[in-house]
Amino acid sequence: MARIKRLERIVALTKELNDHPFQLFPFSYFCEKFTVAKSTLSEDVQTVRNGLSTYDLGIIETVAGASGGVRFIPYHSPEADNEFLWTLAKKLNDPSRLLPGGMIYMNDLLFDPQISFRLGEIIMQRTLELQPDYIMTVEAKGISLALATARAFNIPMVMARKEARITEGPAVSISYVSGSSKKIQTMSLPRKALPPKSKVLVVDDFMRAGGTARGMQELAEEVGAEVVGTYLFIASREPEKKIINEYASLMTLQGVDAETKAISIVPEML
Amino acid sequence: MARIKRLERIVALTKELNDHPFQLFPFSYFCEKFTVAKSTLSEDVQTVRNGLSTYDLGIIETVAGASGGVRFIPYHSPEADNEFLWTLAKKLNDPSRLLPGGMIYMNDLLFDPQISFRLGEIIMQRTLELQPDYIMTVEAKGISLALATARAFNIPMVMARKEARITEGPAVSISYVSGSSKKIQTMSLPRKALPPKSKVLVVDDFMRAGGTARGMQELAEEVGAEVVGTYLFIASREPEKKIINEYASLMTLQGVDAETKAISIVPEML
Repeated sequence: MARIKRLERIVALTKELNDHPFQLFPFSYFCEKFTVAKSTLSEDVQTVRNGLSTYDLGIIETVAGASGGVRFIPYHSPEADNEFLWTLAKKLNDPSRLLPGGMIYMNDLLFDPQISFRLGEIIMQRTLELQPDYIMTVEAKGISLALATARAFNIPMVMARKEARITEGPAVSISYVSGSSKKIQTMSLPRKALPPKSKVLVVDDFMRAGGTARGMQELAEEVGAEVVGTYLFIASREPEKKIINEYASLMTLQGVDAETKAISIVPEML
Repeated sequence: MARIKRLERIVALTKELNDHPFQLFPFSYFCEKFTVAKSTLSEDVQTVRNGLSTYDLGIIETVAGASGGVRFIPYHSPEADNEFLWTLAKKLNDPSRLLPGGMIYMNDLLFDPQISFRLGEIIMQRTLELQPDYIMTVEAKGISLALATARAFNIPMVMARKEARITEGPAVSISYVSGSSKKIQTMSLPRKALPPKSKVLVVDDFMRAGGTARGMQELAEEVGAEVVGTYLFIASREPEKKIINEYASLMTLQGVDAETKAISIVPEML
């Protein structure tokens, strides 16, 4: 009976930790839930840690002390991430994805939960040291990736709009020049969305010249927040000179050949 | 040693099943991964099932036969769901959320991954029998809920746009009358997004008269797909006569009092 109870606890512990990445659970939370002593729980936590690490499924961190506890951090080996990105790049390079103007159709991939959630975990892993408080994106195609990244960090996402909406209350707005269309556009953010001094990681699906990314930076600064990083799903190699200086991407679009319909997207590997 | 290995397997099995809701894993997949016999794996699966069910964390289904396997289905008890929705409704009824025009600020809740993912699981649970192939939404505020629902079902999401974009290729578009603004608007969907005859569950954040929801229905029908249901986060009680007949929501906005700033949102409980 005790044996069976232990197995059931391990299952429940694994699921709860996995469902709340980065959330620090006090040991007392699980001790009460499972009605076990702290020493027993420590053994269980060690078991979950070993199981995840043996199969490259993530990290269990324990924090000692009165305000301590246990938490799960999503993690995959660089080899596993690289393989995932290569497989995805192959799909992106399918000539049938090429649209007029050198654009590439990729909604089906970005809106596939299994793909976007894995990508979100990779972005989290690669930006961990930035310790963002918020993930910021702009409507609409980047939202799935931004939400997946927010989920991996277990922090909120905020979304800038292309125009202010009455449903979102007082807003700040800025004008920016979209790199691809060269048109002056407006972007806005509800005043309530981002507290002053918060650290913001910008996540978006695609960047060419960086006008939109720059716009999001200005918008964040306008409310007193700080952009600590900008991460794209795909960044175009052209133009070489971008409007923003600091950014990184999961993939680089090296170019497209309209005649042969060849697309060349390569992953940024670790 | 064998004991430790079993515990580690249980941890890995729990995590893999949990991360891929509804995905049917052939028994052979895990037998090879863990190098165990099918009888051993069956015991492990039974352990995961018991652990999840004891702590109200979900369901493990096994399908017998050559094309059979094992899969995880997110599930919470109606009591737990009701409690979650009541807590959320209390937050929504905070008078500081009231905006001009009787609108309610709720981005912070919808874009909190822990909240949206739980809501997505509740929608999935309440629409399970519709067996949708796709979750459909329209930009932009409903995307987090739609993606969370897609994640819970492990099916793709598709997103209609308020205007056609060159980055998404050939599109179909329809005109619709937005219930709140009474203006004629356009909504479009990439032709590639939705295969003919696919079964679509529409998910959105808010519905007043139902104009937008009706637009999404027409858009889906335009490409030969079928809308099997429409699910909202919040539906307004007013106007009583909606443009669409069939819908359900997690919450009902019973009304707002601009003078006292009282908001009355109540959950739809099971």
